[in-house]
Amino acid sequence: MRPRAASLACIRADVAHVHPADIGMRDHAPMEDSSDDDLVDTVTVHLREHDLAQVRAVMARHDASDLVRLLEREDGRDRAVMYRLLERQKALEVFELLDAGMRAELLQGLRTEDVARFFEEIDPDDRAQLVDELPAGVAQKLMRGLSPRERELTAPMLGYPKGSVGRHMSTEYVRLMPHLTTGDALSHVRHRGGDAETVYMLPVTDRERHVLGVVGLRQLVLGRPDSEIGAAMVEPRVVAATDDAETAARDVVEAGLLAVPVADGEGRLVGVFTVDDATRILEDAEDRTAARQGAAEPLGRPYLTTSVFGIVRARVVWLLVLAVSALLTVQVLGFFEGTLEEVTTLALFIPLLTGTAGNAGSQAATTVTRALALGEVTKRDWLVVMWREVRVGSILGGLLGLLGFAVGGLVFGWALGGVIGITLIAICTIAAVVGGAMPMLARAVGADPAVFSTPFIATFCDATSLIIYFVVATWILQL
Amino acid sequence: MRPRAASLACIRADVAHVHPADIGMRDHAPMEDSSDDDLVDTVTVHLREHDLAQVRAVMARHDASDLVRLLEREDGRDRAVMYRLLERQKALEVFELLDAGMRAELLQGLRTEDVARFFEEIDPDDRAQLVDELPAGVAQKLMRGLSPRERELTAPMLGYPKGSVGRHMSTEYVRLMPHLTTGDALSHVRHRGGDAETVYMLPVTDRERHVLGVVGLRQLVLGRPDSEIGAAMVEPRVVAATDDAETAARDVVEAGLLAVPVADGEGRLVGVFTVDDATRILEDAEDRTAARQGAAEPLGRPYLTTSVFGIVRARVVWLLVLAVSALLTVQVLGFFEGTLEEVTTLALFIPLLTGTAGNAGSQAATTVTRALALGEVTKRDWLVVMWREVRVGSILGGLLGLLGFAVGGLVFGWALGGVIGITLIAICTIAAVVGGAMPMLARAVGADPAVFSTPFIATFCDATSLIIYFVVATWILQL
Repeated sequence: MRPRAASLACIRADVAHVHPADIGMRDHAPMEDSSDDDLVDTVTVHLREHDLAQVRAVMARHDASDLVRLLEREDGRDRAVMYRLLERQKALEVFELLDAGMRAELLQGLRTEDVARFFEEIDPDDRAQLVDELPAGVAQKLMRGLSPRERELTAPMLGYPKGSVGRHMSTEYVRLMPHLTTGDALSHVRHRGGDAETVYMLPVTDRERHVLGVVGLRQLVLGRPDSEIGAAMVEPRVVAATDDAETAARDVVEAGLLAVPVADGEGRLVGVFTVDDATRILEDAEDRTAARQGAAEPLGRPYLTTSVFGIVRARVVWLLVLAVSALLTVQVLGFFEGTLEEVTTLALFIPLLTGTAGNAGSQAATTVTRALALGEVTKRDWLVVMWREVRVGSILGGLLGLLGFAVGGLVFGWALGGVIGITLIAICTIAAVVGGAMPMLARAVGADPAVFSTPFIATFCDATSLIIYFVVATWILQL
Repeated sequence: MRPRAASLACIRADVAHVHPADIGMRDHAPMEDSSDDDLVDTVTVHLREHDLAQVRAVMARHDASDLVRLLEREDGRDRAVMYRLLERQKALEVFELLDAGMRAELLQGLRTEDVARFFEEIDPDDRAQLVDELPAGVAQKLMRGLSPRERELTAPMLGYPKGSVGRHMSTEYVRLMPHLTTGDALSHVRHRGGDAETVYMLPVTDRERHVLGVVGLRQLVLGRPDSEIGAAMVEPRVVAATDDAETAARDVVEAGLLAVPVADGEGRLVGVFTVDDATRILEDAEDRTAARQGAAEPLGRPYLTTSVFGIVRARVVWLLVLAVSALLTVQVLGFFEGTLEEVTTLALFIPLLTGTAGNAGSQAATTVTRALALGEVTKRDWLVVMWREVRVGSILGGLLGLLGFAVGGLVFGWALGGVIGITLIAICTIAAVVGGAMPMLARAVGADPAVFSTPFIATFCDATSLIIYFVVATWILQL
């Protein structure tokens, strides 16, 4: 790896100082008439001052040919950074004006690890405003021949947010035109398919790369050689490069597709997203959900090859958080200590009641979390979910309450039986509602529904059920 | 649907009477010399007496041509039942001797829903001994043109157990021979690929259907037309029709394959298993695991379209089981009621301690359940898992114990702080070990590891942690 250029190092050191409010705020004099040297100086100064918004604003006021001359004077890394700060349309025009050698050098610069890291370290909100999606054609050239790991490193460059389809797509595909015959298309695949990630799903586009349809290799092989691709292609299920990768992955798998075309904001083909990437993404998501449901972070590697310390680290934070939350139960019981001293028998039922509340709550939470993950329920359904859980919880509470009344009444007398029965009805209902509400709430605020894990809900239900228990007891036993 | 034949109705009424011990036990006189009429009479009588083992034993003593004459005399359903009771090799010989019309009638009979149900209702252990895998060629003819639903109905006929690959495979595939050229193979696919489930993975077999390799359609399209399939094919990853479908599905997905060939016990091709079936199977498995982790049964349909009563049913059994198990905690506390009356303050920490034990236990259980599901851990690793959980649990317990000692000691005095600290160390260790052991135990006895759900483990840990708490308290506080 070559040593890092000084100017880039100095930008990186303080990149967090860029604020969205900076963008286009300071009004410099128009620069259209100034010489190329002036442009170079101005941009270089802004770059050294880490004022990316100004770099972008200044460049926006120049036409493509000026910008080409600017880029030709810079070294590889500064060139790459400046180029990525261009608006999309400008970036496309500039790329088309560059000669072959300069194009190769620019792409080389864009692939450099510290340029990628530089953009990764910009605050995501700033980045969204500073860095447009790369023009589809440039993106493809940039990604061509990169290994999956290199692609992942380069991803921040492309302007696709973390966890988006753009970070997981492949840019090695074979694209067809609608006017081709099936026979010609097959020869095209034969010549171009060598490096493609898949040739089983072939996107059909116009000259500007707008996705028109898809055709399967099966259709090319089985179809009549003189039929036109435009007639054979089917309506594509296109995903946007900025779409959430997990949602897109679930769609691909549910629809039983081998691959889908990925388009940029203007509907132009930038890549393909294949079923094996989709299943890998879903697998990772399941790992995360499974771990979080059990109040731990995913290990990220096989259990037996994770160090004991690594396992401790995945569990310790949640365990501490939950233990500290459980101090609430100590306070609640402290408040009712007098009642407990009077009727010690009440203490006997504490684990039974808190446990049942926890179970009822986690049943509801698990169901709703899963339904959210599968897209069966969306955050707008919260009222329906609540109402269902009220009914389910009260029916379950009614059944358990009857049992609690009978058993408790027979062994400890009917007054205590009544306390237990009524408490069970109330806590089952509340636990089911809370258990159903928590994942909905998490989703509504943009968090992972699985963070409101079974243990988290159990802890929350513990405190609630203790309060209900002692209020009911005080009332029925007239303490 | 035609009315059910009387003889079949009478077999079905009492099919459970067949016992494995019956098979070949009663020794009839050898019948090789008897006339065809005798054979028909004997077999028909045994069939009417529901003695399938005898039907099988008698038929085993005759050669294929006798059996052909026997089958030709029977009606469609009895013919199908008798045919399926033949040993595999005999079944193949008989099928080859049948003329085209009789073959079609036999297949027709085998597809009948009540013949399939008849075999489904035989005790699985008996069925394994009575019904061989169907010869690969017959199986393919039987399944051809059936819808997925029809295939599922017909599956018991094939001798593949529930949850096996055979129940999920497709029998519509294009098979290639190794001596074909790539060009000829491509024309073959062109002519035969219309109905195939997939043409992207093409199994290569010899004349006896033994799987030799696989070749992708991509290789056919991109390869030189005059190269031989035998040279282009790759080592196949073959699954057996009797393999567990979930394991096979995970293998297909992990390996990023579009499909794998399915072979019978002799390595002969019987079908293909595709990635979309694999992902559907894994999805269902995840549904089941997710629900069971939350102590409920899977709903089997989207949450919002399940009736309230359906949701109650999925949850009520586990909730009752857990509540009844929790009566154990009432008994434990009842035993220590004297101690509680003396130091009521002890009651204040009950929910905190039981809750923490439950959390530590479910963290371990979730991790190990997931590792088992992914095949990262097998039941033979139990000693390694236990030893890891002892260390993880005691480190976590040590951290929490220190915190408990400090907080408890500051607020309630150092003696009580000591009780809480020591209890936390002990219960975290035990809970982690129990949480890790439960899923391993379930797997060892062939049950779903997820049935030892978070709530189940929490309930178990509750009782254990209460005992430890009061023993430690009695000792330190000298009660």
